[in-house]
Amino acid sequence: MLVVKKFGGTSVADKERIFNVARRCMEEYKKGNDVVVVLSAMGKQTDVLLAQAREINPNPPKREVDMLLTTGEQISVALMAMALDSLGVPAVSLNAFQVPMRTTSNYGNARLKDISTERIRNELESRRIVLITGFQGVNKFDDYTTLGRGGSDTTAVALAAALHADICEIYTDVDGIFTADPRIVKTARKLSEITYDEMLDLASLGAGVLHNRSVEMAKKYGVKLVVRSSLNTKEGTLVKEDVTVEQMLITGVACDKNTARIAVIGLEDRPGVAFKLFNHLARHNINVDIILQSVGREGTKDISFTVAEDEVDEAVAILNRHRATSVKCEEINVDRHVAKVSIVGAGMMSNPGVAAKMFEALADVGVNIKMISTSEIRVTVLVDESSVERAMNAVHDKFALGVTG
Amino acid sequence: MLVVKKFGGTSVADKERIFNVARRCMEEYKKGNDVVVVLSAMGKQTDVLLAQAREINPNPPKREVDMLLTTGEQISVALMAMALDSLGVPAVSLNAFQVPMRTTSNYGNARLKDISTERIRNELESRRIVLITGFQGVNKFDDYTTLGRGGSDTTAVALAAALHADICEIYTDVDGIFTADPRIVKTARKLSEITYDEMLDLASLGAGVLHNRSVEMAKKYGVKLVVRSSLNTKEGTLVKEDVTVEQMLITGVACDKNTARIAVIGLEDRPGVAFKLFNHLARHNINVDIILQSVGREGTKDISFTVAEDEVDEAVAILNRHRATSVKCEEINVDRHVAKVSIVGAGMMSNPGVAAKMFEALADVGVNIKMISTSEIRVTVLVDESSVERAMNAVHDKFALGVTG
Repeated sequence: MLVVKKFGGTSVADKERIFNVARRCMEEYKKGNDVVVVLSAMGKQTDVLLAQAREINPNPPKREVDMLLTTGEQISVALMAMALDSLGVPAVSLNAFQVPMRTTSNYGNARLKDISTERIRNELESRRIVLITGFQGVNKFDDYTTLGRGGSDTTAVALAAALHADICEIYTDVDGIFTADPRIVKTARKLSEITYDEMLDLASLGAGVLHNRSVEMAKKYGVKLVVRSSLNTKEGTLVKEDVTVEQMLITGVACDKNTARIAVIGLEDRPGVAFKLFNHLARHNINVDIILQSVGREGTKDISFTVAEDEVDEAVAILNRHRATSVKCEEINVDRHVAKVSIVGAGMMSNPGVAAKMFEALADVGVNIKMISTSEIRVTVLVDESSVERAMNAVHDKFALGVTG
Repeated sequence: MLVVKKFGGTSVADKERIFNVARRCMEEYKKGNDVVVVLSAMGKQTDVLLAQAREINPNPPKREVDMLLTTGEQISVALMAMALDSLGVPAVSLNAFQVPMRTTSNYGNARLKDISTERIRNELESRRIVLITGFQGVNKFDDYTTLGRGGSDTTAVALAAALHADICEIYTDVDGIFTADPRIVKTARKLSEITYDEMLDLASLGAGVLHNRSVEMAKKYGVKLVVRSSLNTKEGTLVKEDVTVEQMLITGVACDKNTARIAVIGLEDRPGVAFKLFNHLARHNINVDIILQSVGREGTKDISFTVAEDEVDEAVAILNRHRATSVKCEEINVDRHVAKVSIVGAGMMSNPGVAAKMFEALADVGVNIKMISTSEIRVTVLVDESSVERAMNAVHDKFALGVTG
């Protein structure tokens, strides 16, 4: 069996944790399995390097930032190889040049294009554990690139796909995927299985265990993913195409506090106004999420939408620049104290009453809904940030997620 | 003009020094010259990484040590590129894979075999300063190697040779090559020129500004070397084949305190005894320097020799292991409080009285000579460590080295 394991930065933050990971890899190896391990940079190393860069140049060239950051994972894999050696397990570390791992050319946010498997297979055949730098690649200019947020997860899934691995294990500091954040909903329960699509909706909604790009890639290539803890040996959650256990109506409740609402009041009510507004934002790469349009006072309309909280100032600045021309309006309001609460579940596709049931749960505990957005397997509502906890618990209870299905 | 500049770890130890180097490179660039810069790892970074490795594995695999250490120079070149960018100077950093810089396969002490110049030339033609990681290479397995002590100097000289550079400048924390160590001999004078051979003898005698390997390579390929300070703009010392200024009798006085004398007393006086003794040491890679053999008490002989101080314990242990068999002797004595004092100069070849003049100088100040060793352009004496300062000053004065020739 060929197993790809991915450990994040906190799992390799110090000597003790490095040996903890090394022992887990050794156990897998001693079962006779082929083991490929993807590692992130140690602890806060990436942040330390970035701070060093900004001290020298507040706006450092992206190519050189990637050249700098890729040293982080290289240190991790080299030290892990030394730890395995001291346990008597043969291992070899490889960086993006050595695999090689080819990406698109854009620095800081490259996409994996092609992974050569020859060297990795040769090392596995020599019965070595192969340790590979996550998050990094090499572009057509033979320059280092990095994969952006969630990059090491993507490296692991891409390697699992390229090597036709039997399983890709993503180790994290939680036991798996839960029906809700256990810190907010005490009755939250770990799921044993979940579909790729549900996982995608959960990730984009702020559940934050796996990055969307890695789940999308896993879905595309049918990579069997497991999310599990690096701190214990509990089974974790299996992410795959179809779940075999009885399909529940909904799978989980997620929240995302990194959101803010912008209301543009009193826009002219004529064709093209909405297009122009959102086009200005798109040109500056500002992602707009839920959109609500309503009729305003005579001859005008109001448009509300949500953006990530750290982009709200820029979004408002952009709109203000165009208020005299293409975005004529009476006022622009911002509400930062909002949060998204969502329910996700493949089961709701064939069950039209789900949204209503969610709204009922919220009404029962007096939570006011500010905006609504739905997809085939998801219902999202925007609520006041202060009522998130109440909202999540109410919805979680309503759908009896704490009870094993 | 194409200029290769090499800066060591202390020259890039912090933000201020990085900018100091960046500004010097910018000045060269603004003259219209092509500039290639070789950098070492920042400050004590290499030692920090080695300590981290040993904490995990007291005897780490050499391949992985090189994988670890090469991150140090990569950080230096990336940060330097950012510094130059902030000064408005286009620059690009390259590691050993990107050049590529091919070496022999032995980790920790590889030798450069082949440097591709295509990418460097392309970057220079685009009017970029090219920043290259010193000390590192890639072997035939596509693994990182490091070049051992003085590695970054060697990288710089090899690049200068491969690129047919007009000059290779080695920046250090002293103003150039001196007639003696200015900390010991107050009247020591900076040399404006010196030959490769003199430099080789000075380096091996503990003057320690340039490593022998880099000087040997410079001599082999006729690379014009300049040793100068990174702290000021003084001219430095030019190292080349023939010096054009009037040839002095001797060029400099050097001392080396990292030495110890081992005396093997009462060896059997028959053929092969010396061979066996030194063969044991050679097998363990222990370098023996000055050797003195004298007739001992009836039917025996004594052999004394010097080794580096940090190898003396191992050397004695090796000899003791063989005392019952091939190295039968009465006793083995060690004297750690000795030092070598040497005079070097191409001018002494045609001047037989030089050694005698040195001995006279030492006798004048009451310094006892324990051993003597000579080559065509060098005389070395072993003296008591406590008399080094007196010995060097006496010799320096005798040959009037403080007076400009």
